[in-house]
Amino acid sequence: MPADIVFALDPRLAADTRAVGDLELSRVLLMNDARFPWLILVPRRAGLRELIELPRDAQQTLLDEINRCAYVLHAMEKPDKLNIATLGNVVAQLHVHVIARFANDAAWPRPVWGVGERVPFPATVLDARMTSLRAALRLTANA
Amino acid sequence: MPADIVFALDPRLAADTRAVGDLELSRVLLMNDARFPWLILVPRRAGLRELIELPRDAQQTLLDEINRCAYVLHAMEKPDKLNIATLGNVVAQLHVHVIARFANDAAWPRPVWGVGERVPFPATVLDARMTSLRAALRLTANA
Repeated sequence: MPADIVFALDPRLAADTRAVGDLELSRVLLMNDARFPWLILVPRRAGLRELIELPRDAQQTLLDEINRCAYVLHAMEKPDKLNIATLGNVVAQLHVHVIARFANDAAWPRPVWGVGERVPFPATVLDARMTSLRAALRLTANA
Repeated sequence: MPADIVFALDPRLAADTRAVGDLELSRVLLMNDARFPWLILVPRRAGLRELIELPRDAQQTLLDEINRCAYVLHAMEKPDKLNIATLGNVVAQLHVHVIARFANDAAWPRPVWGVGERVPFPATVLDARMTSLRAALRLTANA
């Protein structure tokens, strides 16, 4: 397979996140921002930009994986609302945000994108968060 | 069925939109904002707030209806990007935005929500838009 059609995570997504692991279709990322519990799913198919480019069966797999991440965030965080979105105006690679929102969070009731500056987790908190998420999503670090 | 479990469109959604028609699960609304080609799908189930509250088969119907709206907006508008999102921080009733975005639109690359003021369509333009959308979505005015 030529290198240009192999999946590679967009470097801007990689820079702001930690990889939790791979589900059947999607790589699950944790946004390294202590202000919001925030997962991102990236289907591991090269060159994808729009949801409608993904075949129906793969979309249904993605929907199941969105539910899995949403259930886990909902169970762990007990948010006031979940925000689920694929925008891609800045990073065109297809990716889906699943964010636990609270009525007293740093952006409420606005969307989180472009609000203030990302606040990275302290390293020990990030490690603990990754361990909890991998257990809840039944992913291993090497998945 | 008691009145409180009958579906009713949130009045804030109703105030900003025109009803295009009803698909199998969702009411399709056109946001009355000339700045952005913007549809909203509202599953006609009373009391829904979160995607994960909807059973899997209904979610798959919703996904098909999102695709239908996204294809129609993509074909009509040839946007640079589609934005698809369910947020609900302001209006909790479950609703899904499908928005055609352009690199020169009034909010790019930011999300559209909360940016500036809504610019209602002139009445004749709105009527023409509704006619085009109903034809493209194969909906009738009384659906």
